[in-house]
Amino acid sequence: MNIYNWSELSDSQKQQALRRPAQESSNDIQRICKEIIDNIREDGDAALYRYSRELDRFDGADLRISEQKIKNALESIDKDLKAAIDTAYDNIYAFHKAQQGSHIELETAPGIICKTKTHAIESVGLYVPGGSAPLVSTALMLSIPAKIAGCRQIIMCSPPPVSDAIIYAAHKAGVDKIFAIGGAQAIAAMAYGSDSVPKVLKIFGPGNQFVTMAKKLVSEDPEGAAIDMPAGPSEVLVIADKNADCALVAADLLSQAEHGPDSQVIFVTDDKDMLDKVIKDTDEQLSALPRKDIARKALAKSSAILCKDLNEAVVISNTYAPEHLIIQTDNADELSDKCLNAGSIFVGAFTPESLGDYASGTNHTLPTYGYAKTASALGTDDYRRRYTVSKATAAGILNIATTVERLAHEEGLFAHKNAMTLRYKKALEK
Amino acid sequence: MNIYNWSELSDSQKQQALRRPAQESSNDIQRICKEIIDNIREDGDAALYRYSRELDRFDGADLRISEQKIKNALESIDKDLKAAIDTAYDNIYAFHKAQQGSHIELETAPGIICKTKTHAIESVGLYVPGGSAPLVSTALMLSIPAKIAGCRQIIMCSPPPVSDAIIYAAHKAGVDKIFAIGGAQAIAAMAYGSDSVPKVLKIFGPGNQFVTMAKKLVSEDPEGAAIDMPAGPSEVLVIADKNADCALVAADLLSQAEHGPDSQVIFVTDDKDMLDKVIKDTDEQLSALPRKDIARKALAKSSAILCKDLNEAVVISNTYAPEHLIIQTDNADELSDKCLNAGSIFVGAFTPESLGDYASGTNHTLPTYGYAKTASALGTDDYRRRYTVSKATAAGILNIATTVERLAHEEGLFAHKNAMTLRYKKALEK
Repeated sequence: MNIYNWSELSDSQKQQALRRPAQESSNDIQRICKEIIDNIREDGDAALYRYSRELDRFDGADLRISEQKIKNALESIDKDLKAAIDTAYDNIYAFHKAQQGSHIELETAPGIICKTKTHAIESVGLYVPGGSAPLVSTALMLSIPAKIAGCRQIIMCSPPPVSDAIIYAAHKAGVDKIFAIGGAQAIAAMAYGSDSVPKVLKIFGPGNQFVTMAKKLVSEDPEGAAIDMPAGPSEVLVIADKNADCALVAADLLSQAEHGPDSQVIFVTDDKDMLDKVIKDTDEQLSALPRKDIARKALAKSSAILCKDLNEAVVISNTYAPEHLIIQTDNADELSDKCLNAGSIFVGAFTPESLGDYASGTNHTLPTYGYAKTASALGTDDYRRRYTVSKATAAGILNIATTVERLAHEEGLFAHKNAMTLRYKKALEK
Repeated sequence: MNIYNWSELSDSQKQQALRRPAQESSNDIQRICKEIIDNIREDGDAALYRYSRELDRFDGADLRISEQKIKNALESIDKDLKAAIDTAYDNIYAFHKAQQGSHIELETAPGIICKTKTHAIESVGLYVPGGSAPLVSTALMLSIPAKIAGCRQIIMCSPPPVSDAIIYAAHKAGVDKIFAIGGAQAIAAMAYGSDSVPKVLKIFGPGNQFVTMAKKLVSEDPEGAAIDMPAGPSEVLVIADKNADCALVAADLLSQAEHGPDSQVIFVTDDKDMLDKVIKDTDEQLSALPRKDIARKALAKSSAILCKDLNEAVVISNTYAPEHLIIQTDNADELSDKCLNAGSIFVGAFTPESLGDYASGTNHTLPTYGYAKTASALGTDDYRRRYTVSKATAAGILNIATTVERLAHEEGLFAHKNAMTLRYKKALEK
């Protein structure tokens, strides 16, 4: 980790200390994704099956996970794993069920009723990454709010082979169709549809550079699909004071660093001893990790920052706007109220990020790469849309007509004005 | 208008009847916007003032509207216009104030507290178009929810000369700084900041092709700014039955058509006489409009559709997903519950779109171009972001540790597992 003393840094050095690794988004990746999308859009299943055999080494007859395969997965899943999924499911369900969406009805003026209503986006597609670590937790995080929102069609894609755990989680959460499809070809199939894969209106979920690029491309096409949020590498910022447990801080830094070589970790403390101890503990714990090579690469691009007090730590956190923020200080509750720009905040020594990654109930799909200044943690509301409904009575029109007419006149929109004037005359007759 | 009998159409003809005009987004526009953005990002005020003089014919010394100019506007604004703005303000304020954001606190499992909180996006930029029709209503619609949400800095750009009405509305709503800047240069200045214009985190508001392209470009850059929603031309769909007032229906179609030559109007009825009468009335009212040339161009790309019953009208509306939906039928309330994919719904004969455009209280910034299937009507929530906060006790950890450990193990993330195991041991000691 790169070590900084915040008060000794110039403005540009401060920027440097909080700089994120540049996102690779090469023209090659864009070209490949565009070609995959164009071909699947043009040739449907023929192209989709071809890409699956070539890129995912799919060797089956049907990309869709069959009822029989689902039945087998439900029977053969490890009992402890099943229990863990069930517990995580319950907590995630409870928290996302509480997110009810806004339903407002208000008589803004006599005779004028305005409402805010929400409804579920009709069909959604969920992407669950596979590869070295198939993410059963992501299957839960994406599908539970979709079902609670009431989406009529929920489909999921994940690279083959799809594990029993993912099948069990998706089935339990109410996913309608599961496909063994990965990468850009999964995103293309869900955005445009094929004979096998239904077209969806919005696509959720993380992925590698190809998945991210494909999501970006289909979201830029009005005939493609909306997406959940802009994506970047995962990251954590940990604030600790002199009374923190340095082993816990080190463990939290490493649980972020092991995600990928482009993950970033920022450690901020107002205590020089703590800084030294955490760096030492991080080194020690690192050597015991199976993914130590990945974590070491991430740490090389990460920062440990000594600040003069915890208020400065808050400023650093709000400037960086981390995806995950862990606060291990005596006044953690108080500090958490001041830390606004974060995707999810973990308060106190007993709240590791891995709790939220799996089982506390909060969603682990969070804005990264500084987007936590404007974008939200994924929630049930992201599977709904808000719209408004209004209704005026004749009496309402008599009250408001001159207001609308005057404003339409000001804007030079006389058909707008006329639409009100005709109502006014009709209301007078009533 | 193009007239169709829905039941006689093939699937591809149905698609044709509901096809939106292609959005012009030429490489020229992209190149020009990119150059403006790059130059303002590089040279700040020097480039900004140069573009303002060249493109907006700005001839003053300061792009910011001075305190004195604001004072003058408040004194010289027409009294009737002021009263109309005040009434519209009150209704828009009441409706957006009711949109409170979600604050949830839940103990998902014993000893595990999860919260959803929201906070205002710190700084926002509002764009109010000028040109042939300076939109005082847009100044209200964009700024009122920003102030209610609690954004710490609210700035507004509008092409010079900025009318007294827009200055009055912006000042009343609590905009901090108003600038006489239009086009792509306004978007670039707000996204990246200059000596005169503060950088903002999110940009709201409609505009011409240059504004739309500039918003798209800055939103694709993590160092740029987020934007409110994807944009397209304005549109309305009107459903009427045999008892509707054909003059009102025609007036509503025209109040959409006069917006611009690329606006689109879809009229759907189950009654052949009504279809004929509305087309006749539209022609008659059209000839009296100052903006009849614009409206005529829009109508040429628009459709009047005869359907077999009102259920089919609902299917057509949900397929088209209009920005504005007006329902003038005997069972308008009942139908409105079935019409899900719309930006804003206007129910019954006394609820013209122009009521919502100006003064009912609902926002007139709405998803267009089919985005009403996934995107929301603008509301106070768009000026906030949601994040989550969690806190576990030692007892909570003792309960949930095995769940987290098992899932981390399944995903091969042993640092995640270790962060929980260390807490478990610490909790045991308590």
